[in-house]
Amino acid sequence: MSRFFSSRYRALQPYVPGEQPRDQRYIKLNTNESPFPPSPGVQAAAAAESGRLQLYSDPACTELTNKLAGLTGLRPEQLLCTNGSDEALNFAFMAFADEARPLAFPDVTYGFYPVIAGLDHIPYEEIPVRADLRVDPEDYLGIGKTVVLANPNAPTGLCLSLEEIGAIAASNPDNVVIVDEAYVDFGGESALGLLKEHENLLVVQTFSKSRSMAGARLGFAAGSEALIGDLNALKYASNPYNVNRMTAAAGCAAIDEDAYYRANCARICENRAWTAAALEALGFQVLPSRANFLFARSPALGGEALYRELKERGILVRHFAKPRIEDYIRVTVGTREQMKIFIETVKDLIGG
Amino acid sequence: MSRFFSSRYRALQPYVPGEQPRDQRYIKLNTNESPFPPSPGVQAAAAAESGRLQLYSDPACTELTNKLAGLTGLRPEQLLCTNGSDEALNFAFMAFADEARPLAFPDVTYGFYPVIAGLDHIPYEEIPVRADLRVDPEDYLGIGKTVVLANPNAPTGLCLSLEEIGAIAASNPDNVVIVDEAYVDFGGESALGLLKEHENLLVVQTFSKSRSMAGARLGFAAGSEALIGDLNALKYASNPYNVNRMTAAAGCAAIDEDAYYRANCARICENRAWTAAALEALGFQVLPSRANFLFARSPALGGEALYRELKERGILVRHFAKPRIEDYIRVTVGTREQMKIFIETVKDLIGG
Repeated sequence: MSRFFSSRYRALQPYVPGEQPRDQRYIKLNTNESPFPPSPGVQAAAAAESGRLQLYSDPACTELTNKLAGLTGLRPEQLLCTNGSDEALNFAFMAFADEARPLAFPDVTYGFYPVIAGLDHIPYEEIPVRADLRVDPEDYLGIGKTVVLANPNAPTGLCLSLEEIGAIAASNPDNVVIVDEAYVDFGGESALGLLKEHENLLVVQTFSKSRSMAGARLGFAAGSEALIGDLNALKYASNPYNVNRMTAAAGCAAIDEDAYYRANCARICENRAWTAAALEALGFQVLPSRANFLFARSPALGGEALYRELKERGILVRHFAKPRIEDYIRVTVGTREQMKIFIETVKDLIGG
Repeated sequence: MSRFFSSRYRALQPYVPGEQPRDQRYIKLNTNESPFPPSPGVQAAAAAESGRLQLYSDPACTELTNKLAGLTGLRPEQLLCTNGSDEALNFAFMAFADEARPLAFPDVTYGFYPVIAGLDHIPYEEIPVRADLRVDPEDYLGIGKTVVLANPNAPTGLCLSLEEIGAIAASNPDNVVIVDEAYVDFGGESALGLLKEHENLLVVQTFSKSRSMAGARLGFAAGSEALIGDLNALKYASNPYNVNRMTAAAGCAAIDEDAYYRANCARICENRAWTAAALEALGFQVLPSRANFLFARSPALGGEALYRELKERGILVRHFAKPRIEDYIRVTVGTREQMKIFIETVKDLIGG
């Protein structure tokens, strides 16, 4: 830290992303990436756009926003495209939470929420999940805070129902309820359909997981025109050209080729079921995930040891050294071949 | 504005970007883009990377940062890559300015500075430029504030010398001096070479202008390892994967093909001289620009009228409805062909 660093940020705890090895030695099941490449149209669109980089991107992302509107059944004014959904989350925290409206989110969830809250100097309450690691919706009814819920939740993969999300929004009419649907396309139910009933609901999604575009950085927020207007005010004051041309073009093509991505999601769901059954056969306790990862623990080997031993054998998974979940590993669901190698390796490890 | 919008941001004045018409009807001389496409290697690198988008980008931008280190003669730890230089500026304002260390910048400069300062709740002083629109370096000597200087300045194209930048840094040892070198490759002198003498100097550059990558969004900050460490703390707390894969790959290729871009810059400097002479022959007063734009006024026609009449004739330039500079237009220097059409059109307009 330099002696010039503002006192505002000296206590900052930066987010530690999952390992991103720069070689391809590992079977990479640690950052919930898709094992499938982007569709041919995405590659073609991005490549074509790379010849026009001398021109600024459209700050309003007009074409992409219109396509997203078609996909979601919303009006373009209800959508904001961002440089990854992390940017959408940051804008939403800034816009809808402050000292007067602190945040509330589960103590077991996406580790980036407390980091952004710290950056933005927003007080927050971490509400313990239940013993079974499920979010208890009762905890959020009438809480009077700005609520953030990953649904499916990370790293558990567990879901709240739309009825539960709707009840939380209805019971907190003076606060925004932010639903982070990064993993919704793997069997979850999207709250986008609830937007017309709840002016205080904001849904955040990403192209990183189900659309194989983690490396392109594209997310979006959806909500009432008024909420999106607030987010736009922050965007235009911080980075008006936040989405680059190639990513915007890739996003358009991905929407056009939606069927390809739906088929990939279906394959991942099949591989998830296969992997969960195989882990259970090895004595693991596996949470019923509706995301592209499994959260599981073995009575034979602790989470940290599993992580370490798997890494030594060329397989990266994620481990969180955090009370209540330190026994678990989070395993991204990859191709069937990857999952077979993973299961064989685990078998060797625990002598199954 | 929604009733949920935080009181922190209700007074926000968002930056208004230059017009970005979505068709190609206009000769676009309004946002200082390069008239030249990116080099073949940039297009090839971005296209190749578009097939690997399912994987997150490297949060540290290792390869790009190493190449930038080679280009600049700095160590990789002295560099941070960002989603456009606007992001670097925002991180720098957040890191090095606050209530205790307010900002100081010229009253005629890049219009985004007061916008970011407003977003970040940083008090700022706008110091009047001289009657000839030059920044007076004396105004910043020992000012005891965090100084931001675009050099060359926008929208004037006028420069401070390296001696003047160095003196400002030396006389404000307890504040960071941020030098925004967006336009430095068109005949300015970079302060990168001063970094070893001044631990409080931060230089920000962009690939948008001289490297034909406005639509890719790539900027960087350069400074002491400690200053860059501070910026990294903010980056990892707000958007760890801020630079996407395609842009990082394009940036690497652009550095590899530096000669192409240097040749483009030389052509733009020639076209700038040609255009300035032609405008002067038409009675314009033209500031001696070292950027890829000219700032000029005509005794015959006001800035707003010039802007409007040119737009009607298919040429977009930028006009700022601001005291002291409202008589001027800012004209991006494009190809010789574009500048000939521009000059012919101006001739028609003012009856020259």
